[in-house]
Amino acid sequence: MSVNRSAATLVDVPRGLAGVVVTDTEVGDVRGREGFYHYRQYSAVELARTRPFEDVWHLLVHGELPDAARAAAFAAETAALRRLPDEVRAVLPAIAAASGRSGPPAGLRSALSLLGAAKGFRPVYDIDAERRRRDTLVAAAAVPTLLAALYRLGEGLDPVEPRDDLSYAANYLYMVTGVEPEARRARAVEQYLISTIDHGFNASTFTARVIASTGADVAACLVGAVGALSGPLHGGAPSRALDTLDAIGTPDRIDSWIRERVLAGDRIMGFGHPVYRTEDPRSRMLREVAESFGGPRVGFAVEVERRVEAILAELKPGRELHTNVEFYAGVVMELCGLPREMFTPTFAAARVVGWSANILEQAEDSKIIRPSARYVGAVPPVPVPEAP
Amino acid sequence: MSVNRSAATLVDVPRGLAGVVVTDTEVGDVRGREGFYHYRQYSAVELARTRPFEDVWHLLVHGELPDAARAAAFAAETAALRRLPDEVRAVLPAIAAASGRSGPPAGLRSALSLLGAAKGFRPVYDIDAERRRRDTLVAAAAVPTLLAALYRLGEGLDPVEPRDDLSYAANYLYMVTGVEPEARRARAVEQYLISTIDHGFNASTFTARVIASTGADVAACLVGAVGALSGPLHGGAPSRALDTLDAIGTPDRIDSWIRERVLAGDRIMGFGHPVYRTEDPRSRMLREVAESFGGPRVGFAVEVERRVEAILAELKPGRELHTNVEFYAGVVMELCGLPREMFTPTFAAARVVGWSANILEQAEDSKIIRPSARYVGAVPPVPVPEAP
Repeated sequence: MSVNRSAATLVDVPRGLAGVVVTDTEVGDVRGREGFYHYRQYSAVELARTRPFEDVWHLLVHGELPDAARAAAFAAETAALRRLPDEVRAVLPAIAAASGRSGPPAGLRSALSLLGAAKGFRPVYDIDAERRRRDTLVAAAAVPTLLAALYRLGEGLDPVEPRDDLSYAANYLYMVTGVEPEARRARAVEQYLISTIDHGFNASTFTARVIASTGADVAACLVGAVGALSGPLHGGAPSRALDTLDAIGTPDRIDSWIRERVLAGDRIMGFGHPVYRTEDPRSRMLREVAESFGGPRVGFAVEVERRVEAILAELKPGRELHTNVEFYAGVVMELCGLPREMFTPTFAAARVVGWSANILEQAEDSKIIRPSARYVGAVPPVPVPEAP
Repeated sequence: MSVNRSAATLVDVPRGLAGVVVTDTEVGDVRGREGFYHYRQYSAVELARTRPFEDVWHLLVHGELPDAARAAAFAAETAALRRLPDEVRAVLPAIAAASGRSGPPAGLRSALSLLGAAKGFRPVYDIDAERRRRDTLVAAAAVPTLLAALYRLGEGLDPVEPRDDLSYAANYLYMVTGVEPEARRARAVEQYLISTIDHGFNASTFTARVIASTGADVAACLVGAVGALSGPLHGGAPSRALDTLDAIGTPDRIDSWIRERVLAGDRIMGFGHPVYRTEDPRSRMLREVAESFGGPRVGFAVEVERRVEAILAELKPGRELHTNVEFYAGVVMELCGLPREMFTPTFAAARVVGWSANILEQAEDSKIIRPSARYVGAVPPVPVPEAP
């Protein structure tokens, strides 16, 4: 069926396809040197500061920010999709029980796969752009419901039915905690979610596009992306930054703890980024969000950041090392009452919108993404030995 | 979290990464000009002619053909893994019901995802090579059980429990039909399965490797691969070749039917291959398997092949067009009593072994597969308009 190109046309590139342009995109990009990233033509941080999640979601999947009427219609359309079909809801307890040992990403993977099947998702090449977009909305709108239900079932609690009178972010917090959140908490999580929708090209986004390029349905693409997101090298675990705060414990221990780690050559979780040469713009925004809450925990985090940067500047002069998105994301999610094990799943509740935009863009292309491998094993044909 | 390279280092390559070498491999390759493909150093067709499925599975995941003692041990090890864990079995009726509208691949995707979670699969980078291999065996051994159960549930029948005293192929036929198959039928399906384990680099194999390169667990990789396999562009649907036979109907209609299609420029399903310039070696082997059964259906298929090749040689001189693997694969599976809707799922029951070998090979590499995209949208930053 699908096959390799002939050896004559093989093209060598950097390992891991680093820097290899696999597609043009209008979804967004990162400018590491400038400490800037964007969704379409807008600064992602500015969007997070000024807009609701649903407006940015509309920007990603429709290509433009909505006017007032469309914003209201889109918010209503997606809110109506939060409730799960009965056949999926019925299976969630079993998925939660089976997934206990592999954690929330495995549960989300199974549940999203089932949701796509239950909703009759069809191959993206067999349906028009409007139906494709609708499938992405159906899937993404259900992600917070699935995550919250799987979390609560895992805790021995009954799932909380979604409400369509709350924002995406507020409803998510409500379904996780069972309590309608304060407005400032809902807004803080909303700003985190917006800032995490997309961030240049990454392994889960690429996975979604590879699967989309075969023409498979939207659930197949998203399930693959969730799988890639669960890989340790995909990076990102906001709970690790809180682990750093916990390990330090008290302000008087900051200096000794940090010096010990740096001199031992350990990486300090929550600091450093492969691309940003300045402050991570997400970190800067989320620090402001955290500071608007105030309190000793935030004060401690800010002090840790200040001391780490000073000590790194002293011990590793010339290296620009700042907090990355994980650091204040963890602080903000903790302030808003999200349990630590839900930090990475919450990331998926944002990134699903970025994956959606990338799937929709890929589906407009008709070229399958299918690179080659170079065979380097023993030269065939070696005669097959007789069966023993 | 994961991010794009900086624009300065972007590398342009052919669309869809065609011919781009993403990895070295010792799993196998295709030599299109020679009409030859191989698993490791052995001709795949010779393996299919001379060995049981389990021996070739061992070759793929252990890197060598087993001696007699290891062959027996491996067959026993994998046979013992056919039975599903209770928590997965309990959910299969719900998965079958929910997946009815999206078909067997969506059901397999959900069930495999759940199986991996229930079995506590861990990220491939967090476990050793022996545990990784074991996870691939656990998953692959369960694929026929999952497929047969989902099929029977969809038909309103009770699933048939696997038997560990039958071969992989015989047990699969037994679980689908509920009847222990004749030896020649089990062997025919076995030869088809062996010939389909791998076939150079393809989109589902690549998907599995991309996900594995993040370090995600084996189920995450396989679920992504099943998703890619479900895409129409991944190619391959042995049932289409039977549709051609059915559409022609009787021997006297062959010539007029074929000429009409060829003159209209239609593709004739079951004929032609993007790489093979000679006979597809799988087709040649499967024709022999079919002819060993004899009967009017096989005779008709052979006559259709003969007439199509003659008419194509006359109307499209110089083009080498032969039957591809789909043509006789469909005939063989029909002879063996597999329902047409199970043809593509049966392909997954073979290819899962090829995916396994590729995942294990990828997991030995520590480099994430993460290409780049080139942003070509409106130049940011455009100020975000005030919320309406």
